[in-house]
Amino acid sequence: MHSERFYTLTASCPDRTGIIARVTGFIAEHGGWILESSFHADPGIEGEHARYFMRIEVKAASLPFMLTELRERFAPIAAALQMDWKITDSAVKKRVVVLVSKQEHCLYDLLARWQSKELDIEIPCVISNHDTLKGFVEWHGIPFHHVPVVADNKPAAFAEMQRLFAAVGGDTMVLARYMQILAPDLCAAYPGCILNIHHSFLPSFVGAKPYHQAYQRGVKLIGATCHYVTADLDQGPIVEQDVIRIDHSDSPEDMVRYGKDIEKTVLARGLRYHLEDRVLIHGNKTVVFR
Amino acid sequence: MHSERFYTLTASCPDRTGIIARVTGFIAEHGGWILESSFHADPGIEGEHARYFMRIEVKAASLPFMLTELRERFAPIAAALQMDWKITDSAVKKRVVVLVSKQEHCLYDLLARWQSKELDIEIPCVISNHDTLKGFVEWHGIPFHHVPVVADNKPAAFAEMQRLFAAVGGDTMVLARYMQILAPDLCAAYPGCILNIHHSFLPSFVGAKPYHQAYQRGVKLIGATCHYVTADLDQGPIVEQDVIRIDHSDSPEDMVRYGKDIEKTVLARGLRYHLEDRVLIHGNKTVVFR
Amino acid sequence: MHSERFYTLTASCPDRTGIIARVTGFIAEHGGWILESSFHADPGIEGEHARYFMRIEVKAASLPFMLTELRERFAPIAAALQMDWKITDSAVKKRVVVLVSKQEHCLYDLLARWQSKELDIEIPCVISNHDTLKGFVEWHGIPFHHVPVVADNKPAAFAEMQRLFAAVGGDTMVLARYMQILAPDLCAAYPGCILNIHHSFLPSFVGAKPYHQAYQRGVKLIGATCHYVTADLDQGPIVEQDVIRIDHSDSPEDMVRYGKDIEKTVLARGLRYHLEDRVLIHGNKTVVFR
Amino acid sequence: MHSERFYTLTASCPDRTGIIARVTGFIAEHGGWILESSFHADPGIEGEHARYFMRIEVKAASLPFMLTELRERFAPIAAALQMDWKITDSAVKKRVVVLVSKQEHCLYDLLARWQSKELDIEIPCVISNHDTLKGFVEWHGIPFHHVPVVADNKPAAFAEMQRLFAAVGGDTMVLARYMQILAPDLCAAYPGCILNIHHSFLPSFVGAKPYHQAYQRGVKLIGATCHYVTADLDQGPIVEQDVIRIDHSDSPEDMVRYGKDIEKTVLARGLRYHLEDRVLIHGNKTVVFR
Repeated sequence: MHSERFYTLTASCPDRTGIIARVTGFIAEHGGWILESSFHADPGIEGEHARYFMRIEVKAASLPFMLTELRERFAPIAAALQMDWKITDSAVKKRVVVLVSKQEHCLYDLLARWQSKELDIEIPCVISNHDTLKGFVEWHGIPFHHVPVVADNKPAAFAEMQRLFAAVGGDTMVLARYMQILAPDLCAAYPGCILNIHHSFLPSFVGAKPYHQAYQRGVKLIGATCHYVTADLDQGPIVEQDVIRIDHSDSPEDMVRYGKDIEKTVLARGLRYHLEDRVLIHGNKTVVFR
Repeated sequence: MHSERFYTLTASCPDRTGIIARVTGFIAEHGGWILESSFHADPGIEGEHARYFMRIEVKAASLPFMLTELRERFAPIAAALQMDWKITDSAVKKRVVVLVSKQEHCLYDLLARWQSKELDIEIPCVISNHDTLKGFVEWHGIPFHHVPVVADNKPAAFAEMQRLFAAVGGDTMVLARYMQILAPDLCAAYPGCILNIHHSFLPSFVGAKPYHQAYQRGVKLIGATCHYVTADLDQGPIVEQDVIRIDHSDSPEDMVRYGKDIEKTVLARGLRYHLEDRVLIHGNKTVVFR
Repeated sequence: MHSERFYTLTASCPDRTGIIARVTGFIAEHGGWILESSFHADPGIEGEHARYFMRIEVKAASLPFMLTELRERFAPIAAALQMDWKITDSAVKKRVVVLVSKQEHCLYDLLARWQSKELDIEIPCVISNHDTLKGFVEWHGIPFHHVPVVADNKPAAFAEMQRLFAAVGGDTMVLARYMQILAPDLCAAYPGCILNIHHSFLPSFVGAKPYHQAYQRGVKLIGATCHYVTADLDQGPIVEQDVIRIDHSDSPEDMVRYGKDIEKTVLARGLRYHLEDRVLIHGNKTVVFR
Repeated sequence: MHSERFYTLTASCPDRTGIIARVTGFIAEHGGWILESSFHADPGIEGEHARYFMRIEVKAASLPFMLTELRERFAPIAAALQMDWKITDSAVKKRVVVLVSKQEHCLYDLLARWQSKELDIEIPCVISNHDTLKGFVEWHGIPFHHVPVVADNKPAAFAEMQRLFAAVGGDTMVLARYMQILAPDLCAAYPGCILNIHHSFLPSFVGAKPYHQAYQRGVKLIGATCHYVTADLDQGPIVEQDVIRIDHSDSPEDMVRYGKDIEKTVLARGLRYHLEDRVLIHGNKTVVFR
């Protein structure tokens, strides 16, 4: 993360010759200073089309025009290359809505990062199906919404959550050990915008009580996975994963405790990649330009 | 591993008070010097019975009798405690039969460890369904048996392998990336004696082409698992696992290459634990006293 | 950590035959149920004396007497074996005084663990040379003491800290990124009671700005070290360490950010080992029974 | 590593606007298909000049001219940008001379990779100060040169090694646990061409017996470092490092054994990065485009 204001272009397009030259030529022509750039050619397998991915940070002050004009001028190039693209501005803070249940470890971790400006974001509100963490959140000056989710109010509860997210202008929804399965239409409404932390090394141990599943199988490492939420439970594109060593002496409760340490770290890393526009979704996979 | 000769007692039994006292009291009574000792109480979950596991190394020279008498004298104690137990002698080298196919990385790795006496074992023979590695094995002075396995000779081939294993007095069979599925009755004949290295972080990606499965799922770490072979493919008790980080730029072929590095390390570690009698099987799980 | 009340015996003594038998015989004689036990024989190198270490958890309810009597009855055995020993009671919560400066990541992490009872301790107070974190600490209902440390008040400041620690009956002092070097006599007053987290993989990069030192040297992994504080800066016995991968694109500021994630995890692990009496100091090294 | 022939351009130059555009514009102009590209802007610290690094793989068949002409045509651009640069051809195998002493683990590991073409290189010869591994090397059809190094023949021995390296047209010299310190003028003759594996996590434990040093300090992880050899012992630019966890029960001999596993992996990874022209030296540090 650079201290000066910069624009971040992320794009993907069918692979062909001349893509980097075209894009960086445009930037150079206007005197743009590139701070960081990453490129990836995905050859596809078994008859898929090759696809090209890029991420470029340009110092804002080096360009002779503002973001709106940058987008306008870049649009024809993007069109010619059949790009999916966007340009974001480091001066515009991302707005991250955090969903929690009763467990506090991920929330404490995220708020510590937010407090220290390590995560330089806005948290317009926290939403929870319990009010356990209300005081902690409000002490930080962040609005807290208690939206109970019970068997017979789910559609209304998820509609309320979606309304709250829209009302505060949320960019990203983070499920920080939020223990409810989101409604499929909520997932579908924000593709690539909802991050979850699952407490297993996916695809092992999908669903409930993964540490107990891991205990039963006798694995020697347990993990956590940060992924985008889709309508298929625990099947969305994976952003980040990590593992920690355990042994025969660890009970499921010990695994829960060990697991928290990787859950919060993996979630924080995945969230950071997402917020810095380092993650490009490719089908059910991700390109992560770290 | 100690330089002096020692006996290793491994045992498991129903948990109760006084187990350690009884066993170490017996050793102390005869002046036995304990070099290393490990204990584990498994409480069981959901109504299982608690079970106790132990491993004790005693300096051979500190005891006033030989191994046979040690076993005789210990037997009544073991019976009283309803133990599954054995005592091995560090002076008796384990006899390890290695099975390979065409890939050499695990074999080179094992023979380097054997050559340097890091693995202080006998390798009475190597068995392969191909003759690719014959010269390499024979250069080391180890007999090589080519036992082709094709669709219509499997029973005969596995019978021949079982015969060879028995003929050389094998203790342990190691599948060092041996690409055939062993016959169920061969697996059943040697429970807790056959180690396999599977090229995924089990239980993810069971079966064929796990790296391609991992590529398709877009995981961010790949792994390898050393486990005991049972009649259920890739379902046996896990001895050791490890993982390595990959990213979007890695093709399935890159993963195969990265994976080799953990396969050989995980296999070597799992094999060492097994050979040093550090692994006690508990249902479909293992206690590994490292 | 077990849910039932238990006593933890930790001890070290010159190695000889019969130690385990003597100790566990005593426990068995009184019907003590051993929950967990660990033993380690350190052979010494180059003429040092061999030394024996142990840690045993006994279920409190299984013994027919209370802790005071347990200690009295065990004392003669300990004396005969020339033991350094202690017995602690899981029902008596450890009292941990936390020292911080301005950085919040370790403090948030510790308080989240304390809040969730993952760390089942008392935090009688937090002491800081700044008042930055006062509100956060007090919101948790924990007294906060601002003890400024400046060039010309150091003896008085450290005396005040020592007074506060004594006044609240502290067992353990944790330097959670407390950026001052403690006075030698404060260190000497509480040997094996003060834990620090140093932001490098010791012994590399002792002293100030270790991440900048790491950047200059071009290392590919950075680390953190939890160690006991002694009068020699960053030279005390190491309890726990870990590392994280970086690369050429990471600035010193990036390293600081990555480093925080391992600092808090390493500190929390080291502190847990210490609080559960899993750490036995041996000269300038530690035995850690995990 | 791609299956098709490609050219790899690596370059560094003072940072300025338009570098990528200029270089990729040149490639695009001639229809060059970029397979992989990496860029890094090093801002410098404390008044150093910012420097730019790049590595680009271009499919050979996509260009309308051969390598010689590519170099001629690129030279003026490189000159204008004040580049240090080179272009290599994937069809020209690198020639790697391996130096060993008596320990076999790194040699077995490298030859297994070479045998399987995982490392697609020529090994024109192996040089050793002992003849221990002569048979093993020659069995692989690789010439083996025994060049004893003793106190009073060092200048002659190193001169002979340099003569052998030159005679076989070596590109890279690999010290695969070669236990002698190379003469300074040999180091100086091949800057950035000689790779060593040091058996510690540098900068900790420089020099002799690092595992014993690690044992004495009581560290909880041990490591290995692959670095370029310079005249300053163990001070050259670091290419790759890794660590492995140990504990109080590990003797120095155990550490030696554990360490071998990371030594060979770290050496193999560092060597691969070097051979694929992924390592660019920057003062006493490296940029490694993985």
